[in-house]
Amino acid sequence: MIKVGVVGGTGYTGVELLRLLAAHPESELTVITSRSEAGLPVADMFPNLRGHLDIAFSVPDIEQLSACDLVFFATPNGTAMTMVPQLLEAGVRVIDLAADFRLQQVDEWQQWYGMEHACPEYLQQAVYGLPEINRALIAQAALVANPGCYPTAVQLGFLPLLEEGLVESGHLIADAKSGVSGAGRKATTGTLLCEASENFKAYAVPGHRHLPEIRQGLQLAAGHAIGLTFVPHLTPMIRGIHATLYAQLLDADRDLQALYEARYGDEPFVDVLPAGSHPETRSVRGANHCRIAIHRPQQGDTVVVLSVIDNLVKGAAGQALQNMNVMFGLDEDTGLSNVALLP
Amino acid sequence: MIKVGVVGGTGYTGVELLRLLAAHPESELTVITSRSEAGLPVADMFPNLRGHLDIAFSVPDIEQLSACDLVFFATPNGTAMTMVPQLLEAGVRVIDLAADFRLQQVDEWQQWYGMEHACPEYLQQAVYGLPEINRALIAQAALVANPGCYPTAVQLGFLPLLEEGLVESGHLIADAKSGVSGAGRKATTGTLLCEASENFKAYAVPGHRHLPEIRQGLQLAAGHAIGLTFVPHLTPMIRGIHATLYAQLLDADRDLQALYEARYGDEPFVDVLPAGSHPETRSVRGANHCRIAIHRPQQGDTVVVLSVIDNLVKGAAGQALQNMNVMFGLDEDTGLSNVALLP
Amino acid sequence: MIKVGVVGGTGYTGVELLRLLAAHPESELTVITSRSEAGLPVADMFPNLRGHLDIAFSVPDIEQLSACDLVFFATPNGTAMTMVPQLLEAGVRVIDLAADFRLQQVDEWQQWYGMEHACPEYLQQAVYGLPEINRALIAQAALVANPGCYPTAVQLGFLPLLEEGLVESGHLIADAKSGVSGAGRKATTGTLLCEASENFKAYAVPGHRHLPEIRQGLQLAAGHAIGLTFVPHLTPMIRGIHATLYAQLLDADRDLQALYEARYGDEPFVDVLPAGSHPETRSVRGANHCRIAIHRPQQGDTVVVLSVIDNLVKGAAGQALQNMNVMFGLDEDTGLSNVALLP
Amino acid sequence: MIKVGVVGGTGYTGVELLRLLAAHPESELTVITSRSEAGLPVADMFPNLRGHLDIAFSVPDIEQLSACDLVFFATPNGTAMTMVPQLLEAGVRVIDLAADFRLQQVDEWQQWYGMEHACPEYLQQAVYGLPEINRALIAQAALVANPGCYPTAVQLGFLPLLEEGLVESGHLIADAKSGVSGAGRKATTGTLLCEASENFKAYAVPGHRHLPEIRQGLQLAAGHAIGLTFVPHLTPMIRGIHATLYAQLLDADRDLQALYEARYGDEPFVDVLPAGSHPETRSVRGANHCRIAIHRPQQGDTVVVLSVIDNLVKGAAGQALQNMNVMFGLDEDTGLSNVALLP
Repeated sequence: MIKVGVVGGTGYTGVELLRLLAAHPESELTVITSRSEAGLPVADMFPNLRGHLDIAFSVPDIEQLSACDLVFFATPNGTAMTMVPQLLEAGVRVIDLAADFRLQQVDEWQQWYGMEHACPEYLQQAVYGLPEINRALIAQAALVANPGCYPTAVQLGFLPLLEEGLVESGHLIADAKSGVSGAGRKATTGTLLCEASENFKAYAVPGHRHLPEIRQGLQLAAGHAIGLTFVPHLTPMIRGIHATLYAQLLDADRDLQALYEARYGDEPFVDVLPAGSHPETRSVRGANHCRIAIHRPQQGDTVVVLSVIDNLVKGAAGQALQNMNVMFGLDEDTGLSNVALLP
Repeated sequence: MIKVGVVGGTGYTGVELLRLLAAHPESELTVITSRSEAGLPVADMFPNLRGHLDIAFSVPDIEQLSACDLVFFATPNGTAMTMVPQLLEAGVRVIDLAADFRLQQVDEWQQWYGMEHACPEYLQQAVYGLPEINRALIAQAALVANPGCYPTAVQLGFLPLLEEGLVESGHLIADAKSGVSGAGRKATTGTLLCEASENFKAYAVPGHRHLPEIRQGLQLAAGHAIGLTFVPHLTPMIRGIHATLYAQLLDADRDLQALYEARYGDEPFVDVLPAGSHPETRSVRGANHCRIAIHRPQQGDTVVVLSVIDNLVKGAAGQALQNMNVMFGLDEDTGLSNVALLP
Repeated sequence: MIKVGVVGGTGYTGVELLRLLAAHPESELTVITSRSEAGLPVADMFPNLRGHLDIAFSVPDIEQLSACDLVFFATPNGTAMTMVPQLLEAGVRVIDLAADFRLQQVDEWQQWYGMEHACPEYLQQAVYGLPEINRALIAQAALVANPGCYPTAVQLGFLPLLEEGLVESGHLIADAKSGVSGAGRKATTGTLLCEASENFKAYAVPGHRHLPEIRQGLQLAAGHAIGLTFVPHLTPMIRGIHATLYAQLLDADRDLQALYEARYGDEPFVDVLPAGSHPETRSVRGANHCRIAIHRPQQGDTVVVLSVIDNLVKGAAGQALQNMNVMFGLDEDTGLSNVALLP
Repeated sequence: MIKVGVVGGTGYTGVELLRLLAAHPESELTVITSRSEAGLPVADMFPNLRGHLDIAFSVPDIEQLSACDLVFFATPNGTAMTMVPQLLEAGVRVIDLAADFRLQQVDEWQQWYGMEHACPEYLQQAVYGLPEINRALIAQAALVANPGCYPTAVQLGFLPLLEEGLVESGHLIADAKSGVSGAGRKATTGTLLCEASENFKAYAVPGHRHLPEIRQGLQLAAGHAIGLTFVPHLTPMIRGIHATLYAQLLDADRDLQALYEARYGDEPFVDVLPAGSHPETRSVRGANHCRIAIHRPQQGDTVVVLSVIDNLVKGAAGQALQNMNVMFGLDEDTGLSNVALLP
């Protein structure tokens, strides 16, 4: 039984982590902290947990957390970095669902996140928690940086093409659409039902924090610098990311369908759909899968990859549990085998 | 391992049943039939089932179904009644998720469903599958009539009041609101996104088929005839039923909160919320629970009961599995312990 | 040309008022105030107004407002009452879209709104702005209290029955469902898309501020005290109110359809649908109409009235313009003849 | 007064045309035909028209239609072409909202629409009804082919770049997102609320009928062949198209914001937003505007254009009325000056 602590947990990533932990047979939630909600039973905030989770939020306490085997941070950016060093020293393993350890270059991190990094010396030792790339490293890692939601969908979609050097990598385009839960549970005007439903818009076109994270991952896969235009959009639904990826093919003769099927054939959570398919975000609602389809419209030299995930599962809490399973030597799909909720 | 067959299964009740069966550890789906889709792998129709269910629809065949321990009918009204007698004779137990065996009086059934009943002699022997009322009978039953969605929410909400004779039973009011999945997966203009979203309306106010079913259940609980006005409404969401129930109290001194907590204290799937609560349909999305709150506004003589379920789970497929568990002596929550998906 | 001022105008009631004023041929918006947004062009906050309204928010200034013929208050409760006396003394007529002048009894107002009333002496002289009741008084009024959204839908639905004394008035039930825009544009967790979409719930069952307003209106219509249970619900859509009203008939022989058609035959904005109809909220989206249908299920003694409005139009800004038209002797539908947006 | 006839009108394009015609001061709807609904008052099908339009559907009759000054076809593809020659011969002017006359090459038309064209000789004389390109020709036209919804949003977004030869035109990308009303009012499983809400997907990636139409328009603007990848997506909302357009700049020094403002400065229905903006589809809901923003992320060589319209207005019925206004010498915004409905 893995003793698990959760720091944060009052947001959407948090409640999703709790939903999944409640069904995980090899772990035990021993502490969940929230400074603002200390004392409140978790099920009073999230009524879906009534009868499933009998624990209350407590004030964050390093000593108490140090008794855990693993601590998840489901906190705003900038929180985990203030506590991680102490926990690691205490021998606790950590998965950060926020962005504190996702970028390897401290300058880049500080530029995009607008604050000073509290422990830049950990950036290089943190393992980027995309199991489809880093499985072996994750298994040994003390500190895992759980990927962002857009970066998961975009990287899984582009990886086979870049690893094989099949596309012109200077002008990659990622047109991504996200459900509103990606913006979190904080009350803001822009994410009110009356503002965000029956509406569609792009945002952060000049630059989004997930751009450097995606670029870093794609460059590692390609082995050289790449050029990426990333445009996120807000979609009037709760869950789901759909990434539509465009690149120009350098080699028109390669069988892309076979390439993707081979690359992901052993992956428990990446599903390459039959040729000609159009994946739907609802096909992964509540599930940890990424479903991918590859197209070459009119047999031209532009490849179009469609990649869908549930931003709260494979894009956050589910991937975190997948990482935990890898870190602790469990079957990778332990507690993650539920069927997506459709309709 | 219970050998399970499903007749039908191309509608929303069907896919939900398949989702739940895929996670049920003590049953095995051996056959699923659909005349129109024979040969099609189930996962080709419902992409959420990819990787979870490797079975194709087949033409309905009594012999093949007779090899099952239990057959679910997830068919339109009027189908089950043509096959049930043969299956029962073959020793197969049956749960009908449609309405063929829900009413005890054949005349009433024929009037509301507009067709002749094919085996009226089974109406009296069928057990109405609301475990909170009929648990012992269900355990022994060969044929279970799984309740309708509205009837489940309304009966669970009214039962304690009627069993105790606490309200004026001649003028009960059930104002019920349902998500659109209650109308099924058949393509109709009225349930298109462009017709049913950003819209709210009542329907079937002159008379809905669930009225006689609810009335029958409430009369059995009360021990005498009751008067009920039932108004269903279509709500712009996929899943969920919210029943708002009104009755005039005969005894203003009774502690209703305590009454409900006592009545449902041992029920695994009925959750009486703390006094003053307002249950949300999303708190049971994808889960088999019914959550209930009781109010007496301004301490007057009108009691208001709020009762929510997921129409596809406790209102259909989940309750069917709960009945299966009871029939086969399993723990009642086997395969039904998942947490509701929120947000 | 009526010189119009608007105090407030940064909320949903405000932007709707601006949309309607932009199309009103006999009025001219000369000033719009918002302390927090002073200096901001209105069209920068509400992009639908780009090209239609070239005016910026300014700091509220009594002198400037005193140059108007009419001032609308689209402010939170408690603001209008601090400025209205000065404006009235300056000869300006006022329509308050908030609740400051809706209740005649200051004690009741203070109890439900939780603050001291700043000018209780105006409560009796304010005219309740429901033209279907008070048209003649409105025409002469200096101060009009524009009705709440629920009260408009519920009163228009119940009025004919109470005016004629046809129902048992001690146990009226109003089960009302509102789109989320009724909660305003303020950022709150409960009205986020991720909380309020795909969800349905009742709220404020113990007591909602619109209860005393509805009761006051119904009692005036009935000529005596009435008993009302009012249960509001939050519906996952932006606009629209659907009130489902229940009462027990005292006289089973009266032709209710004819009664309603006669009562509202001359009303430009109340549409009695043919017998057997189910009005949809979308049939009035963006329009100033109230559409009503009357049912007697199974010819019993319970009458069910269905009443729909757009909460932001007939339930707020549209009714305010209708009142302006009445006050200034214009055709009552001036600027209000647009067709509802469907789909 | 322009005497107007409408053929079809039972779909979403039709009801939107009726909504706009009801508010158009210089036209009079004299006949509306529908073979299937002959005899039915229009307001019985579309309750928003109650009190606004007192006319019933009639059987299509060439003689009756010939008495009109203008006939709109709001029919499925393939219908207008069977009646247009007779009407033109009778001196009636025609605007076809379907696709029968949008492509100039009959071979291409027949390939994409899968039927034989009934009057290919009219393809060359039909004027493509995008006023921002063809205003002078439209004014004189007897037959106007009203553009498709995607083609309107995409062409208006790309035109200035192609007219000036500023981008690499061999690899244009149009990633377009549409509300579900674009799929029409026909009952299909894929557009049910339970299938299309809380879901996002691409469709027709191998080839969509609007591809040749867009390509034709862009080639005319560029003066040479272009390469275009067009990927449409279904978005869980009723109305709105958001086109996100990508191209590589050949000239990095050109001021694109100034270019667009100059190109569209005199256009009544194209609104170029300030630099840095993100247009929202709701800002044009129910209105005839196209709102556009231009971005160059990270000052790179990829230009991103964001273009939004209401698919039923500027993408269909509104543009048809705009064309009517041009054809009959009216102010171009007659009957089209309403403010978008927000929220």
